[in-house]
Order: sequence, then C-alpha cells, then structure tokens
Amino acid sequence: MHAIPEKTVDTAPIIDFRTSPDQYHHWTISIDGPVARLVMAVDEDSPHATGYELKLNSYDIGVDIELYDAVQRLRFEHPEVRAVAVTSGIQAMFCAGANIRMLGISSHSHKVNFCKFTNETRNAIEDASAHSGQTYMAALNGTAAGGGYELALATEYLMLIDDGNAAVSLPEVPLLAVLPGTGGLTRVVDKRKVRRDLADVFCTVEEGMKGKRAVEWRLIDETVPRSKFDERVTEKALELAATSDRPTDEPGMILERLERKIEADEIRYPSVSVRLDRDGRCATLEVEAPDEDAPATVDDIKKQGVDFWPMAVARALDDALLHLRFNEPTLGTLIIKTSGDGGRIAAYDALLKDNQDDWLVREILLYLQRTYKRLDVTSRTTFAFVEPGSCFVGLLADLLFAVDRSYMLDGQNDDRAAPTIQLSELNFGALRMANGLTRLETRFLGDDDNVGNARKLIGKNLDARAAMDAGLITYAPDDIDWEDEIRLLLEERASFSPDALTGMEANLRFAGPETLETKIFGRLSAWQNWIFQRPNAAGESGALKLYGTGKRAKYDRGRV
Amino acid sequence: MHAIPEKTVDTAPIIDFRTSPDQYHHWTISIDGPVARLVMAVDEDSPHATGYELKLNSYDIGVDIELYDAVQRLRFEHPEVRAVAVTSGIQAMFCAGANIRMLGISSHSHKVNFCKFTNETRNAIEDASAHSGQTYMAALNGTAAGGGYELALATEYLMLIDDGNAAVSLPEVPLLAVLPGTGGLTRVVDKRKVRRDLADVFCTVEEGMKGKRAVEWRLIDETVPRSKFDERVTEKALELAATSDRPTDEPGMILERLERKIEADEIRYPSVSVRLDRDGRCATLEVEAPDEDAPATVDDIKKQGVDFWPMAVARALDDALLHLRFNEPTLGTLIIKTSGDGGRIAAYDALLKDNQDDWLVREILLYLQRTYKRLDVTSRTTFAFVEPGSCFVGLLADLLFAVDRSYMLDGQNDDRAAPTIQLSELNFGALRMANGLTRLETRFLGDDDNVGNARKLIGKNLDARAAMDAGLITYAPDDIDWEDEIRLLLEERASFSPDALTGMEANLRFAGPETLETKIFGRLSAWQNWIFQRPNAAGESGALKLYGTGKRAKYDRGRV
Repeated sequence: MHAIPEKTVDTAPIIDFRTSPDQYHHWTISIDGPVARLVMAVDEDSPHATGYELKLNSYDIGVDIELYDAVQRLRFEHPEVRAVAVTSGIQAMFCAGANIRMLGISSHSHKVNFCKFTNETRNAIEDASAHSGQTYMAALNGTAAGGGYELALATEYLMLIDDGNAAVSLPEVPLLAVLPGTGGLTRVVDKRKVRRDLADVFCTVEEGMKGKRAVEWRLIDETVPRSKFDERVTEKALELAATSDRPTDEPGMILERLERKIEADEIRYPSVSVRLDRDGRCATLEVEAPDEDAPATVDDIKKQGVDFWPMAVARALDDALLHLRFNEPTLGTLIIKTSGDGGRIAAYDALLKDNQDDWLVREILLYLQRTYKRLDVTSRTTFAFVEPGSCFVGLLADLLFAVDRSYMLDGQNDDRAAPTIQLSELNFGALRMANGLTRLETRFLGDDDNVGNARKLIGKNLDARAAMDAGLITYAPDDIDWEDEIRLLLEERASFSPDALTGMEANLRFAGPETLETKIFGRLSAWQNWIFQRPNAAGESGALKLYGTGKRAKYDRGRV
Repeated sequence: MHAIPEKTVDTAPIIDFRTSPDQYHHWTISIDGPVARLVMAVDEDSPHATGYELKLNSYDIGVDIELYDAVQRLRFEHPEVRAVAVTSGIQAMFCAGANIRMLGISSHSHKVNFCKFTNETRNAIEDASAHSGQTYMAALNGTAAGGGYELALATEYLMLIDDGNAAVSLPEVPLLAVLPGTGGLTRVVDKRKVRRDLADVFCTVEEGMKGKRAVEWRLIDETVPRSKFDERVTEKALELAATSDRPTDEPGMILERLERKIEADEIRYPSVSVRLDRDGRCATLEVEAPDEDAPATVDDIKKQGVDFWPMAVARALDDALLHLRFNEPTLGTLIIKTSGDGGRIAAYDALLKDNQDDWLVREILLYLQRTYKRLDVTSRTTFAFVEPGSCFVGLLADLLFAVDRSYMLDGQNDDRAAPTIQLSELNFGALRMANGLTRLETRFLGDDDNVGNARKLIGKNLDARAAMDAGLITYAPDDIDWEDEIRLLLEERASFSPDALTGMEANLRFAGPETLETKIFGRLSAWQNWIFQRPNAAGESGALKLYGTGKRAKYDRGRV
C-alpha cells in the first residue's frame, strides 16, 4: 500500500471566511417585510479556485462561505425577518450540489473540511428555525440535486415547482460512487422519516423524484404549479413567519467586518489571539477577558454591537477555528488559554442569563453555542491550560469542558496569584453540545451527582485542588512539574498519528444521546471520509475523477 | 491516487465457522455448578493463516471463531450455567488483543470483516448477560491490552489481579495508529462512562492503568491481590449467578455439528439453501418452510433439539451470512427468498410466543434476533422477492423488513396461487434491531399509526395489494413486469460502487434511536474503516505495518 498522493485544489494562499453582501458573487438577500428570499445564482466564472466552472448552481467553498455569511446576517442584522425562503435565481435549477470537478481534483483533506463546514452551515440553518424564530423553507423553483437537495433538507418545508421537469434527487451513489454526505442520508430517514426501503430506491435513482410520489414518500412537503409558485411561496413563508417571536420594530446588530491581522506566527483579533508554533505543530488560542465592565442593560449591548465582548469572542473564535482547519492543517494541537481580569466576566454572564429572552441576547448565546460546537467537531487535539493570569470564568469556563484535557497549575509559578476557575449559570444549560446535553452533563454521564455538586459551586473561585475535587479539570501539576509535564504532553501528542487521534477524539467527545447532528458528524461523515479514500471513488479510475469525461469508472467489486 | 493493492492473509480456501470444544486450539470451558470459566490459552503455533504467531494470548479469526462457538454452547448446552468468568490460562497476560502482525498483513476487507465479527461476538456476550440469565465477568489474572481489554469491556464486571504488573490498556493509538475499534472507545465512555478527558488520557498511555486509579476512573470494578484472586472470582461469579432465572435441573440443547454441503454454485443446509450467481454477483438465500407441523409443547422442542425448525433456520442463516461475508466478497447482493407451505409457520410462531419465558425458547428467539441483526449489519445489498410458492409468514416475514427493498408479485405468473405474506406477534417485539426498535417500528418511524395498523393484520393472508397498502413491501409488479423489473434491478445494483452502497446502506438501515450497538457499528467501525485505509496506519511506512520491526512509522502530519 502506497502513501496516497494528494493534489490540492487550493491555489489561493489562504481561504478567508470573512465576506459581506456587497462582496457576494453567488447569493442575494431580498427582504420584504417578515420574509427574506435567499437567492442562489452562482456565477460560474467565479470559482474559489482554478480548474472548474460552477455550472448549474453547483457550489464550492466560496459559495458556501457566502451562504454562511448570509445566514449569520439574517439572524443578527434582520430581527424583522421571521421566515427565509431559499430559492434559485437561475433557470430550472435550484442547485446541482457540490461541484463534482472541484471534488475530483480536491485533496482528501479539503473534501473532508469542505463537507464539515457545509454541514455546520446546514445545522445553523436548522438552529435558526428551531431557536431564532427565523424559519427556513426551500422554494425549489427548479431541480434540487445532490447537495442541492441536502441544502433543502436543512429547511423545515420543501416546496417543489411542478413544471414537468423539476425533481429532487440524491444521485451521488449511482453517479459518483460517494454518499450524499452533507447530511442527506441522515436527514432523509431521521428528519424526514422517509421509509428506509423507499429511501434506498430514492438514493439510487439518478433522475430523482417529483410530483405526487415525492410528496407521498415524504421527500418534499408540497408541489405547486409554475403559475402559482411565487404566490404560494409567499403565502407559506408568511404562515411560517406568523409563529415567530422576533421583534418588528428593532434595528439589528450590524456585523461589521471582523478585524484580523495575520502575521507569520500570530493572528490577532479583538479579544482573541492565536499563536502558531509550526515546529511544535500546535496553535495557542488565547481569549482575553473584557477590558471594561459589562454594560448594565440590553440596550447598552445593542449600542456596543459587535464590540460587545461575548459577541467579539464568538466571532473571533469562529473565524480562528475555520482558519486553522483550512489553512493550517499540520497544527494538530489547539491549546486554549485565557488571560485578563476574570472579575468582570460574571457580570457579562449574568446580563446574558437574565435577558436570554431578548432576541439579540438569544442570538449571541446561540452563536456562542454554535462556535463551541465548531470546536467540538474540529479534528484537532484540544487542551486547555489554566495558568496564573487566566480567566476561565463562566462562558469561558465552558471551554475547559469542551477540550480533550485540561491542566491547571496548582499554586503559583511567579508572583501572580494561583489560578482559579469559576462557574456560572451559563454552564448549566445555555451552551449545549450537538448531543443535546451541556458539556458538564456529558462530562459527568457516569455520575449525575457531580452535575448537582458543580452547580453548588457557581460563583466561587475554585483553586486547582477544589477544581480537581469537583472533577472539573483533568490534572493539576504543581510549579515543579508544570513545565516538564506540559512540554512532554505536547511532544507526545505531536508524535501520534493524526488520523488515529482524529478517530479517537471523534469517538470520545460525544458520549450520551445521539441526535441528528451527532449522527451526521459521527456516522455519516465517517463513512463519507472512508469512501472519499476508496479507489472506487477517488482513484484514477474512480467515479469522482472520471465524472464528465465520458469514461466509465472501473470498480473493485469486493464488498468490504 | 492509485488503486490500493491488497495482500491477503487468507491462505486457507475458505474460513469455516463451525467448530466444537473437542476441536478448540485456544479456549477451554470448565464448569463448576452455576459458574463456568472460559479460559483463553492461545496456542501460538496454531494461527488461522500463515505469517504470524499468536503470542501473548493475541487472537485472530480462528481464536474468535472458537470464542463465538463457546458463547453459543454455554447458552444452549448449559442451562445450569448462570455466570461466566472469562480468564486466561497463560502467565501474567489475560489477552494482548488482535494479533498485530496478522492485522499488518491482512487485506482491508479481512480487517473490516474480522473486526465486525469480533464486535458481534462481544455484543452476543452482552446479550447473554442482559437477557439470558448468564452474566459474564472478566477475571483479569494478567494484563488486558487493546482488544483484550475490549473483550473484558463486553462483560459486566472487571476484576483485575493486583500483582504489581497487570494492567488494562488501549495502546492502539500510540502504538499502532489505529483505534480500539472493536467497541473499546464506545464502551469506555458510553458503557463504563469513564469521563471523557480521563478516557483521552487512558487511550494514549501505552502501558495502561492499574490499581486504585483504574477503579477510580471506572476502567475496572475491582482489583484483588493475587493470593485472594481465585477465591474472589468465584465469590463474585456466584453473586452474579444468584440473580439468574435459568433452570438448574434441565439438560441443554446440544449443538450438533451443522450439516452443510458446499458445491460450486450452491450451499445446502437443513431448511436453507444458498445459490451463488458469480456472473450476476449475487447470492440467493432461500429459507424453506417446516416440512412438519409445529410440535405441541416445549418438551417436544427439547426433544427435537437443533432440528426444531426455527433453530435450524437460525443456525443455517447465521453460518451462511458469515460464509458469504468472508468467503464470497464479490457477491454484492443477497436475495432473500422463502419456499414451502407457510401454513405451518404460524403454529411455530405461536409456540415460541406463548412460551417465551422458557429458558430454551428465550434462547431460540434471542438467537433469531442476533442472526437477523447479523443480516442488518452485513455489508451487502439485501433484497427480498415474494413469489408464488413463498412463505413469508411471521418470523420469516421479519426478513421483509430487514432487507433494503422487497418486491412482491401482484398476481400469478404460473399455475400456483398468487403469493401472500402474513404477520404474527413475533413481528411486534421479539425480534429487535440494534437500535432497540422492532423492524416495523423502524420502518414506520414517520407514522406510528402504521405499526398499529399492521398489528391489526396479524394472521391475515395479505396479497400484494394489501401488503402495498399497509406499507409492508416496496414494490408489487405484476407478471408482465416482474421478470424485467427484477433483472434490471439486479443489473443496476451490480453496476454501482460497492463502497458507496456499503456506506449508503449503513446510514439508511438504522434510523431512530442510537444504542451502544449502533454507535459501535455505525460510528466507531466507520472511523476504524477509514483509518484502516490511511497510509499512516496501513501504508508501507505506517505504524501497523512497521510494528515489531524496530522501525518507526512516518506520519503525514496533516490533520483531516
């Protein structure tokens, strides 16, 4: 068995996830009262990399970055929007899915990261429908194929135009020898609850399904004649909008361009910095405490906008994680640190907790939750180091329970005070994992008492001994051992196989209940990763490579 | 990317799963009252294939075939056994796990199938503890490493000798760049509920853990000094035995050697035949109806022994599925048929249903359940064809809900009567899938009413129209379409990538709740399959290939 040479599709020096509607090539947002239309009209001549054209509303990472941005802006900038209809701006095609030529020439690593990001955006769409009072529907004014149908599946209502041609389909297996792996298979049987034998048929029929049968099989909710389509979309969107609790008379929070400064070994954001240690193959994310007191009211939050400290932290962490995934693949360990005066954080937590019914506070908490989930599914080892001068308090303390291991100095190693950590109410419900549990509930699956005991510690400064006793950290070396222990830890981790670590961490992080999300990340993605490596898909004679060449893939017929 | 050349470890012409204690090389069963000791003393000079020695109680498929046989015999042949202590017959080593050299030279396909079979046996051990009144414990009189500890995790109580050396460990990640993939990772966090950060530590410490810390971390239940070990094992086993409801005064059912005749294109068992179509790349399993009426009483079942029709069917299907998996990898489609007079089956079902509290009837039902589960996780497309002369009644009707799709002839195509199917009580609780639901509950996840409606049809002969209306079959072509439709179906399926089908089927078959079992098969196995293909593990410079050579693996440092 030979090492598999991997071509790369990434010709750009880095992939930048920051964008805004005035920079979009592929999407437009049009808003009419409580209803937004999110219109996909992919510019085929603006692919993110070279070597392919984005025909038929097919997408690549560039298209997906814009979609992610649009979803974020609809939530934050448009409190008045209560329903979002995703639709197409080109003729007879809603979306043809991920661009196949792009997949064919992408590295294994890019394919996997691309699919993960796409999945996260779809989960964010479902999160908006479930928790933001901003319900998505798919206005399928043309065929939704492959990833295009998977995108539609992430909405709560699928309306398909009845024009004699438009269909929904998942042709990946017959055409490409890969899976509908960005949530498709899971959402068909677990969300839409399509009967498994019908799902099997559907997933092997290249041309897909339409009309009455598509409704009967639960693949779509409704099919509507062309002449009535627009009207019915509006009607349905207004119906979905009617159930929302979002305000109608408030301005949104404008998502100003995220400040970021990338240097050789450091990336700076407001409130977060990332140090890159390429020799040691690790990156240190340091979150800084707020440098001013928490505002007193929700109105003050609204005035601060993206400078409101928890929002600034979420935005910076979000971008940093995506940047590291795509642009720094060899930094296998992420170290999480915090710094600054933790004394101010409790007031921020209290402000968020006390006003969680306000639409904007809710959005900020949900965004923090999504960002922490992004950390959970990031394929890097994660360690937290609690040192003097750190501030793992409340919402930052949750990072201690997100990482694979945490180390806390027991005592002092210079003239600063020994570190402490502090819990807040936010650690007990506001920041749930993909499995539906809080990180503390997941941590203490074996002993419910521990969650209750931890709750009693809210607001207390816990030194290393107290934190160990409560099971909140992994190890508490003293100042004599600290440096050696950390050095050996990082060296050891860097010596392991990155693949084995990825698989191990993916299995240890999500104990407890399974949800649509954990199924997608844990089961579907793992199978897709496997298939993305198989010669039948990705080999020189594999279906993914040969698609569109007129040549037929040659398959090894052995079943594994 | 090149097609990956795969060496094969299988020098024997076929792998035969039939064995018995007098043929064992590696295990002995010793029984003392209600307690059995299942003793592993692997003969290092009796590997199943060539190219490796089975040192330190390491195992290969041959060792595992004996273990599976022993577990089956303890259940059926020994009603008096209420607790089973798995232990070692060699010095200072309980079990070192799967033989690494064997894994290093095995084909990808063999590794995957071997791990799956190993997992199934461990699930069968847990099934015995949960449902048979035969509780397993691990009497770890030496180190349990890797798969050895995973075997121990499949028991309900782990007792480790305290001799200063013996430890439990999962060294796969640091040593071999693969996962503890036969249930280990899942059982550590989801069954033992080891805290996830401690699990992370444990899975990266080559030498593992012992003593008080191993107990505190929940890795084992107890550690016992050498001088008291045997005594304490007996004491604990008797304690586990005390809760059992198994009879003390009954003879068991002797598992006579399964009759099997293998010819070029056919395999014959009592009540089951398998036809092999190598050109069409499919195999047809045909289950035959009983040729005599159901016995009247449980005593009659006991007299009939393995000839009791449901038992004969379970044994033959079990062997046929394992044979096809390991020995016929290119037959990608399994067709399930039935033949004979279905009129007798309802009485068999009623006999089983009415006596399910009898220990032997319970064992027969559990064995059917395990065999059907083996079909569920078999990586082949499964179709059922319901034709004139078939007998999909009751326990055989469940096969219709196990397959990926079912086709039923609507009407006649010769002078025989049009086919019908019939449900029994057994379809509504006795034969659960790995997800904990019945196959009908899984099938009708989207509509609970359908399960209730199906229940009302118990005992009725349903023709194709009625079966379609009740959602019990996928398609009902008439005699004009039947032949063409089936031919095209099989040709089309055979044209798809076997890998894509495997991934698709694995994701569509298990909608609904997740359990330890579905997590192991759906999540952990998928990740292991992925890693088994990565050059970092299986490449020429990968850890699995180089283990024991003194050379260090070279890793691609990119994180995927």
